[in-house]
Order: sequence, then C-alpha cells, then structure tokens
Amino acid sequence: MNIAVVGAGYWGPNLARNFRSSDAWNLAAICDLDIERARRVAEAVGGAPVTTQLADVLADPLIDAIAIATPAGTHQRIALAAFDAGKHVMVEKPLASSRAAGSEMVRRAEERGLVLMADHTYCYTPAVLKIRELIADGFLGDILFVDSVRINLGLIQPDVDVFWDLAPHDLSIMDFVLPGGLDVESVAAHGSDPLRTGKSCVGYLAMPLARGAMAHVHVNWLSPTKIRQMVIGGTQRTLVWDDLNPQQRVSVYDRGVDIAEVSKATTTDARSAHISYRLGDTWAPALPEGEALAGVAAEFAAAIRDGRPARTSGDAGLRVLSVLEAAAASLQGSGAPQSMTAPIAA
Amino acid sequence: MNIAVVGAGYWGPNLARNFRSSDAWNLAAICDLDIERARRVAEAVGGAPVTTQLADVLADPLIDAIAIATPAGTHQRIALAAFDAGKHVMVEKPLASSRAAGSEMVRRAEERGLVLMADHTYCYTPAVLKIRELIADGFLGDILFVDSVRINLGLIQPDVDVFWDLAPHDLSIMDFVLPGGLDVESVAAHGSDPLRTGKSCVGYLAMPLARGAMAHVHVNWLSPTKIRQMVIGGTQRTLVWDDLNPQQRVSVYDRGVDIAEVSKATTTDARSAHISYRLGDTWAPALPEGEALAGVAAEFAAAIRDGRPARTSGDAGLRVLSVLEAAAASLQGSGAPQSMTAPIAA
Amino acid sequence: MNIAVVGAGYWGPNLARNFRSSDAWNLAAICDLDIERARRVAEAVGGAPVTTQLADVLADPLIDAIAIATPAGTHQRIALAAFDAGKHVMVEKPLASSRAAGSEMVRRAEERGLVLMADHTYCYTPAVLKIRELIADGFLGDILFVDSVRINLGLIQPDVDVFWDLAPHDLSIMDFVLPGGLDVESVAAHGSDPLRTGKSCVGYLAMPLARGAMAHVHVNWLSPTKIRQMVIGGTQRTLVWDDLNPQQRVSVYDRGVDIAEVSKATTTDARSAHISYRLGDTWAPALPEGEALAGVAAEFAAAIRDGRPARTSGDAGLRVLSVLEAAAASLQGSGAPQSMTAPIAA
Amino acid sequence: MNIAVVGAGYWGPNLARNFRSSDAWNLAAICDLDIERARRVAEAVGGAPVTTQLADVLADPLIDAIAIATPAGTHQRIALAAFDAGKHVMVEKPLASSRAAGSEMVRRAEERGLVLMADHTYCYTPAVLKIRELIADGFLGDILFVDSVRINLGLIQPDVDVFWDLAPHDLSIMDFVLPGGLDVESVAAHGSDPLRTGKSCVGYLAMPLARGAMAHVHVNWLSPTKIRQMVIGGTQRTLVWDDLNPQQRVSVYDRGVDIAEVSKATTTDARSAHISYRLGDTWAPALPEGEALAGVAAEFAAAIRDGRPARTSGDAGLRVLSVLEAAAASLQGSGAPQSMTAPIAA
Repeated sequence: MNIAVVGAGYWGPNLARNFRSSDAWNLAAICDLDIERARRVAEAVGGAPVTTQLADVLADPLIDAIAIATPAGTHQRIALAAFDAGKHVMVEKPLASSRAAGSEMVRRAEERGLVLMADHTYCYTPAVLKIRELIADGFLGDILFVDSVRINLGLIQPDVDVFWDLAPHDLSIMDFVLPGGLDVESVAAHGSDPLRTGKSCVGYLAMPLARGAMAHVHVNWLSPTKIRQMVIGGTQRTLVWDDLNPQQRVSVYDRGVDIAEVSKATTTDARSAHISYRLGDTWAPALPEGEALAGVAAEFAAAIRDGRPARTSGDAGLRVLSVLEAAAASLQGSGAPQSMTAPIAA
Repeated sequence: MNIAVVGAGYWGPNLARNFRSSDAWNLAAICDLDIERARRVAEAVGGAPVTTQLADVLADPLIDAIAIATPAGTHQRIALAAFDAGKHVMVEKPLASSRAAGSEMVRRAEERGLVLMADHTYCYTPAVLKIRELIADGFLGDILFVDSVRINLGLIQPDVDVFWDLAPHDLSIMDFVLPGGLDVESVAAHGSDPLRTGKSCVGYLAMPLARGAMAHVHVNWLSPTKIRQMVIGGTQRTLVWDDLNPQQRVSVYDRGVDIAEVSKATTTDARSAHISYRLGDTWAPALPEGEALAGVAAEFAAAIRDGRPARTSGDAGLRVLSVLEAAAASLQGSGAPQSMTAPIAA
Repeated sequence: MNIAVVGAGYWGPNLARNFRSSDAWNLAAICDLDIERARRVAEAVGGAPVTTQLADVLADPLIDAIAIATPAGTHQRIALAAFDAGKHVMVEKPLASSRAAGSEMVRRAEERGLVLMADHTYCYTPAVLKIRELIADGFLGDILFVDSVRINLGLIQPDVDVFWDLAPHDLSIMDFVLPGGLDVESVAAHGSDPLRTGKSCVGYLAMPLARGAMAHVHVNWLSPTKIRQMVIGGTQRTLVWDDLNPQQRVSVYDRGVDIAEVSKATTTDARSAHISYRLGDTWAPALPEGEALAGVAAEFAAAIRDGRPARTSGDAGLRVLSVLEAAAASLQGSGAPQSMTAPIAA
Repeated sequence: MNIAVVGAGYWGPNLARNFRSSDAWNLAAICDLDIERARRVAEAVGGAPVTTQLADVLADPLIDAIAIATPAGTHQRIALAAFDAGKHVMVEKPLASSRAAGSEMVRRAEERGLVLMADHTYCYTPAVLKIRELIADGFLGDILFVDSVRINLGLIQPDVDVFWDLAPHDLSIMDFVLPGGLDVESVAAHGSDPLRTGKSCVGYLAMPLARGAMAHVHVNWLSPTKIRQMVIGGTQRTLVWDDLNPQQRVSVYDRGVDIAEVSKATTTDARSAHISYRLGDTWAPALPEGEALAGVAAEFAAAIRDGRPARTSGDAGLRVLSVLEAAAASLQGSGAPQSMTAPIAA
C-alpha cells in the first residue's frame, strides 16, 4: 500500500522513516507547505517524492492512505478531505483540536468505510503492550487507582497548554490498558501559570473512575528532573511503569492490602480487623526490543487489510479529546469538577 | 526544666527518649491511661516516673511543660487543662481534630502567656532546615510551584483518612519553608476509597497560592513503592528533596525557563520569543547528621526561655488544620475547590 | 542460659542489646577494662551487672557463654581462657588476628566439646539467608563468578588495613552462601596507600575458585559514595544483592549466556555457534524484616542446645582468616598470587 | 578534505554517517570486501561511492585520509599501506593487535609526516571532556585512585577476550584524563572463563600508578545488569562518572580524607590523630549535548590541518596496547604482575 506523510515538522520525519522501513508500506510522498522542509525529510530517509500540494496527493489514485502530522487545528480539515477522497487516515495526537471536530472525523470515516487511526505511539511500546496484556489477563485484579506523572523541563508551546501537550500521552495509555477504556465520570483540572506565559505550565487532572477508583495525571513543563512514571494499583497486584529505567521498566508488586468482604452492618472496628497486608515478591517481565512507530505502521496496515478499527481507533482519540475538553472546562471553572457527557464506548 | 510526656503509644517513646537525652530537659514523668505501656516506655529510656493521672502531672508545680502524644481528638482538652495549670505545651501533629479546637488552644496559650508548639518533626530535619534557609536567602527566587508526593503501603488507620494521616507532614513542611507560610487561596481535595474502607486511601490536594503559583500534595496508602519527594520550583532555581536518597537528599538545579519581562501589549508570538532555557549545574549541599526530635526538644526549651513563639508555633499548626478542614469540605463537595477563610498570619 | 559480653566498645553495645532482648539468653554481665564504658552500655540496655575482671566472669559457674567484642589481637587469649573455664564462645569478626591463633581456638573448642561461633552478622540478614537458600536449591545453577564491592568514605583504622577491616564481611558471606564454603585456590591482593597512611586504603582481592570460577572483592575507604553490592553469576540465573536499596535488595535475573555442551574436538568457531542469550524476567523475592543480630543470638543458643556447630562456625571464621592471611602475603609480594594451603572443609 | 571509510561492519556505518555530516570532510568512498555491505552503508548515509579495492582508494590522489574500521588484526597492514600512499589514518580501537604492530604504525606515520589518530570515541563525549578539564585544572587535586567498571550481558566475541573487547575503553579514557597519560608501573590481570568458551569472560586489571596511586578495571560479559561507572579519587575532591545516568552523569564530591603532613618519625598513633574527614557538597556540572564521533571527525581534520598530533594520538593508542599486552602476559602467568617496559611519553 502507498502512503503519504502530510506535515514534515517535528513528528513527520519519524513517520516517514518508519513507513519507509515498513514491509507493509511504500512511502509515496511527503507533503509540506514548506518544500525545503519536505525535501530534507525525504533525503534523510533515502529519497521520496515531495510536494506542497495536498490536493495532488489526495487526487492520486495510487495513494491508499495518509498520515497527518500537522498542527492539531488542521487535522479535521485534512482528514475530512482525505476521507472524501477515499483515503485511510492516521492522525498524530491529539486527534483534533476539539471534541466536535474529532466526532465529525470519526463519523465521516464510518460513513466512508475507511480506517481512522489515532497515532497513540506509546501504546505500541513493548512496555505498554505488556501492561495491557497483564491487566486483560486479570493479573492485577480490579483496578483501584492509576497515577501518572510526566514532568520535565519542556518547551513552552506557543499554541497549547501543558494539558494538551503532554496529557494525551497519559490519557491514551490509560484508554489502551484499562478494561473498557478511559471511562471517567468527571474531570477536575488544576493548572498553574506562574511564569505568566498565558497558559498552564503545571497541571493536574483528577478523574474518578467507576467503582470508586481514581485516575490522576500530573504534567509539568517546569521540572528540572524528568519523571515518566505510571502506577496502576489493583486488588491483586500493583504495577509500576518507570519509562526512564531501561533496566527495569515494568515492575509488578505482589504487595498490597487485603480486605475481607464484610457486611454493611459491620462496624468500623470490625472492618479494620479484616484488613491485612501482603508483602510479596516483585517481578519484572522481560520486554522485547522494538520501535513503537514500527508497530503503529504495522497496525495501520493490518486494520485496513482486515477492515477493522485500529487498536488505537478514532474513538480512542475521541475519548482522549473528551477528557481534554472537560479538563479545559474545569480549568475555566477554577478547578470545579466537570461531568463527562455522552461517553464513547470502548 | 521538667517535662512530662502524655501518651505512651506510637510517638510517645520517641518523645521520651529525646527529652531524656536533651540537655535542656529533665524527663519528669510519663503519663498514660495504660500504666503498663507507660512503664515499658520508662524502662526503655532508662527509667522515669510513671502515672495514669494527668491531673497529678498538671498539679505538680515542678513540671514546666508537657508534650502531648495522644489521639488527636483529645489534644484540645489536655492542652487547655495544661494551660490553665500554667504549663507550656507541645502537641503531636495534627494540632487538634478541628480548626475550632486548634483556635481555642492558640487563644488560651496567648491569654496565659505560655508557649504552644506544634511538633512538626520533619521541619527540624537537616534537609528541611536547609531548604528553608535556601528559600529565605532567595536562592530559588520566587516560588512557582511545590509538588509533594508521600506514598507507601501504609496502615489503613481506623480513625482518620489518608489526608489527615499523611498530609500534615507535607503541609507543615510547606508552611515552614515558604516565605509567609502556607498561604493558600483555596483547596480542592480528590480522594478515592477503592477498597471501600469507609475513608479515602488515595488523595490529592490542589492548592493555588498567591501570584499564580500552585502547591500540590499526593498521599497514598496503597502504593507498593515508597516515594517521599518534594519539588520546589522557583524563578531562579528548582529544588528536589528526595528523602529516601540518603546519598543526595537535596538537589538544587540551576536549570529552568527564563521569561523576559514583556509589556501587556505583547502578542503571544512575541512572548514566546522571549522564553529561553537554562541547562545549568546541579548542586547538592552537604547536610549535617542529627535526629530531628532533638531539635524539636531544643526549640521547645529555647522558645520558653526566650518567651517567643516556637518556630513551629500553634499558629503553624492552625494553618495546617485550616487546610485539612477545607480539604475535608472539598471532599464532601466531590472535589469542588473550597476557599480558605480568615487566613492566619505567618 | 547466661551470657557475658566482653568488650563495650563499638560492637559490644549491639551484642548487649540483642542478648538482652533474646528469649534464649539472660544478659549476665558486661565486662570492659573501662568500667565507665561498661556502665554506659549497661544503662543503655536497661541495666546489667558490670565488671572489669574477666577472671571473675570466667570463674562464675552460672555463666554459660561469652561474646567477645574486643580488638582482634586479644580474641585468642580470651577465647582460650573461656574454653578452659568451660564456657561457649562467640567472637566478633575477624575470628583472630592470625590463622595460627584461630586454628588453636578451633582446636581447643573441639577438645573441650564447646561451641565456637564466628559472629558473621551479615549472614543472618534476611537477604543473605535468602541468597544461601536460593543457591542451595540450585536456583542459580553452578556458580560462575562472585563480585563484591564494599566502598565508602570510611574511618582509617589505626590497627588494620582496609582488607582486614572490610573484607571479612564479603568473605564470610561468600563462605556462607557458596556450596562447599569459601574454597579459593589462590589469592592475589592489590592494595594502595595513596595518602601514605602506612596501610592499604583501597584494596582488591582476586580469588580463583574451583572449575574456572572467580571471586573478587573491592574494598575502599576513600570512596565518597557508598556501594555495597554483590553479583553472583550462575549457569541458570544471576543474582544481584544491593544492600543499600531497601525497596529491592535482592534481584534474580533469568538472563544469561547459554553454551551448548560441545565435545573437546570442537573448534572455536563451532563453539561460538553454540552460544545463545536469554533475556528473561527479573524477580525480587520478598524479604522478611528482622535484625540480624537477633538471629546470631538465637543461632548461638541453638548450637549450644543441640550440641552442633553454629552455622557460622569457628571453621568458617578460620576460612576467612586463611584468605586474609594469604592476601597479606600476596600484598607483601606486590600482588603475586598466593596459593591457599591446607583448606578447611566446609 | 576527502576521506574513505575502510570496513563497513559494526563501526563503519557510524564513521560514515559522521564524516558525511561533518563540515570538514567529504565522504569520498566506502570500501569493504563485501560490496553489498558497503552499498547498504552508502545508502543509509544518503549515497557514496563504494568499492572492494583498497588499492584503488589508496591510489586516488583526491583522497586525503582513511578511517579504518576492520578487524584489529588487519589494522597494521592497511595503515602502513595508507601511509606509504601519503594518506592520514584514523584507526578504530584497539590501534593494532600487538604492541609491535602499533609501534611500527606510529613510526611510519612519523617518518611520513602524517597523522595517525586513535579513534578513542569515548574521549570525545561531553562527560569525558569535562572530566579531563576538571583534572587538568587541579580541581580534584592529585589523583589517588581510578576504579572503572564496565559490565553487561555482552556478546562473547569469537576473536578476542573480554579484556581486548572492553578494557580499551577504560584504558583510553584513563590515558586521556590523567595528567601524564596512562603511566602504569605494572599490570596484574585476573581472568575467568567459567563457561569454558576458551577465553576470559570476566576480567580484572590492577595497575599501580606513580606515587602509590592505583588504577583498576573490571570488565565482564556475564553480568545481567549494565554498569558503566568510573570513580576518580583525588586529594581535593572525588569524581564519579555514571554513564548510564543521563540526569547526572558526572558528580564531584567535595568529600574526603585530609591527612596533615607528618614527618617520617611520626608514630602511627600520632599520624591517625592528623586524619580528618570532609563531608562537603556534591556538584554535578551541566554537560552540553553532542555526539562524540562528530568530535572525533573534527579533531582528525584539525590535527591534519594544524600539522599536530591528534588529542588521541597513535602514541595514546600504543599506550593502551602496551597495557593490554602486559595484561595478556600476566594472564598467561596466572595473574602475576607484569612490569611495563619502555613507557611511551604522553
């Protein structure tokens, strides 16, 4: 199949390189308004046709699909045009710049019977694939809490705040690994702009899940130290993913609190008598090597071939957008929790 | 000076041992309703008079002060009786079980001209003393954010939730090191009780500070790994305190984002042009050894001798209580931010 | 049984405290030439008889055993006198200041039918007990190498070099966990005294074991960072013990090199074709809490009661001494390997 | 200037890529006996002429220099031919497969007035450049010891043992950062081949330096964990380089032992009275980003242009070879220290 990469900025070169080296794909074009930028990417991957004209790409009957790596505000327009031209579409995160825009993209893809895939790259790393598998197998038990920290000294983006820049990673990963996807009841967002840049540079998202569980995200552009860690607590075991520890990225702790089932009539004292602690072993699964984007490219091809939604589908991208939009509303309301409306089935 | 320790449970033995070995104090009595418990503590510190009668302790004219290490709900009653008997009082954290109770304690101490000290032990560790000094000297610049994480596999307490159990540490430290003390504008508390123990086991506090800064606390009884880390971001430098890294507890990063002063008329684009990054050195100050409680004992004696408030005064304890009480109200309101009323001057 | 602690310096207080709190023992006396020092120890453990007269202790028919924590040069004299008085003896490491002295102690204990135990405290930590068990169960396979690092900013001892100060720990642990004990073929010691203190402050021991395996020890008083790590490589798995990582002290890696059995006629090239790599899981066993010296006290009592050698017997102490003495000889010979003579059966 | 890369195996592609992107060089040819391998490298760097004929490369008057990345056993022959053809030469480590071969290469380069550079890549990393600078500035004081650990689960090489595979890194770095270069008095090598592969897989090098200092290297192919750490102790400060900690690669500890100058008549006791400890701050310098091989390419060009030896000269490569050869002799002699003969001036 032939694919064109649209957008040759920060992420485009990575897409081009991976589609180029994928067995499933032929890199048919690199499209960017800045032809020099397109040429530099083409040269770096060993040569590819370049163009500034998206219309030409979409009109080319040999091209099966496009991968969009342009600013988020342009995703909707490009994707809709591509669907109308009969092309499958993969989109860099976030799917779009609003839930409404994302919804229309999902709808149009369905109408045309085309694949819309969210490029949630992290979901295709060996660590996240293993986490998803462990949870699906019931290894952690029921999920009690998810706490994700993604902090670093980061570029202050001109167009988006720290939530829209970093939290899509955490949210898309949660959506990918949690059974039933990212099904949050409400979102409270707390942001801070202490340097007066006009947008939040430090942010927190508190998201009650079903059955009393809690998801939480901490994103921060102002931290001198880099932390990328997610703790997923379950009734059976708790998992810690430390993405910056290549020697032990995923650790599973057979350690926790056991609560015996007690009737509602039980007093507090009796209840506490039923709490016990397990101090069990720690286990760190071996993880295969492998670049995540290669998995993205392969999954996009497989979804098209099999006529099925991608593992990180347009709906997945839409669930992430929904949380981001609710977070923005909460932020406007000084952190008041914002209910999620009309959940999107996983 | 003579001191009696009231309460021989979890914390009392530590108090007894430190007052015993302090040059400033004579350990005059250990008082507990359970005489056997009192005796065990007395024996462990090399002998001391024991009693079950608080009244006798308070009636003893030789006793100058008492240190209270009983359940929080009893602090107010014991402290007021002690003040009425003319004794100085030190109280284990939290100062009391409500802001009203704490306020009355503060007022009574003032009326009687006696010292009321909050036993915020962490504030007397070499690390926290150094952090306070660095911030006071302007080494970090203006404070932009404070992020504190205190998570562990912890005992689920019968009487308090994870906020009241753990957050007093974080809050009292923030109160101690921040210029002007813990002056938060509002508190949003997000708690989770996924094991249905009847109280929050996972908790988050988001607290906007003055001038756009943000303080945040994450406390958790269900984490299999132990983290005790506080990041304090400033305009000049950022400090990370990792209390579980004895080889480098406090690191100061000369690293950050510089924003040139820009006029209000400046557009977003021009503004981002004025952002630059510093990737400077890291510096970890040598910290002296020393048990924090020895410092607590010495400070209590010095405050009495000099007729001045202790460095961790009743007011400090009251500021912590105020935040905890606002947090409880926010929790009742499903996480809606709760305004702080009537701040207590630092 | 009644025990007397002889020597109230650095280690004596720890022995006194643990025998005091042991169910198997009654702490009957603390003996030191400096009566004030003995009194301070006695007071710290809640009171015990003190004396400066070793002869009185040995003459007391109620005393069953003594624990020696005096300078190494005095161990032999005190132990022999104790055996002659019919007392069981436990000795702080190293067992004696020479192999000859240690041998006489072992012989005398045997002649009198008394227990001589080496206080190899580390062997009774939960981590080392677990390592011994894993190796004995064949979990690591055959041992390929043992590499131990024990470095720190340490006190430069007036009487011993860094080998005699620190290496007894590593050697006694190796003796305890290796099947067949510390059975080294030769010792090469490389020492350095760059500060011209008159003794080695940096030291390395290279010790070929049976079947081509290798044990190595690095001890260092001049390192600003503290490392206490032992790697034990086996044909099946490799174990890393990091004593300064309380959250994961013992890690077992199911990772390694597999060599298919090849006939002697096989050429090098064919051989390398039979090498393959395993990148398996990591596993960290849960370790119970517990102070090692409590285990030492219990083992000493059990050995006496059962009339059997202690798990860390006089012979174990003698094997450690033999290596230290060979190391000293190698050091004299500028690092030339020194053969071990007359091995002591484990 | 025009350069040809000779050898397109493991290291050649990295050389080709860096010479390609260097401003100082034009990548004129890639030469390998396997033309397909040469073509793959050429394509990966965006195209370059390929050949299997070294003679053609050397006969080309436009080519100024060659970079050799062939097996060590072929370095001498290729380099001598290149010098005879008037080309400057850079050689992958180790410089040659014997000291004699390396000496002849150095001599021939001198005779022809051409540059012979050892590709000691690590020396051009920001960390090592900073370490060299700190030591040269006297920041550490006199060097007391250097301890280097480079262990990993590594490929068992068909042609070389673990010393020749890994230790050239440690030795070339020591040669680069130590004032006066790698000036060792003798070498004792201890190797172990517990898997009976026919060569050492675990190795230790103990190397006394001038004035009582000591250098030591631990290399290991069988370790499941990866450690790359060098500790350099000085009279003023001690430096730790942890190459696997990107957040703090180089730490300088103002911590150590101070010895007052004492006369030779001083007794041991008096001497120990003059020892004191400093527990000072830790400092981690910011390090610039930058690929080491880019620095190698630039230095090669600069040395040619300025008619001066490269910072990692043929002599440096020869000093590394000398130690490796002495180590091999020590290994043959079961670890007996081997004197260094005829040192090469730094």
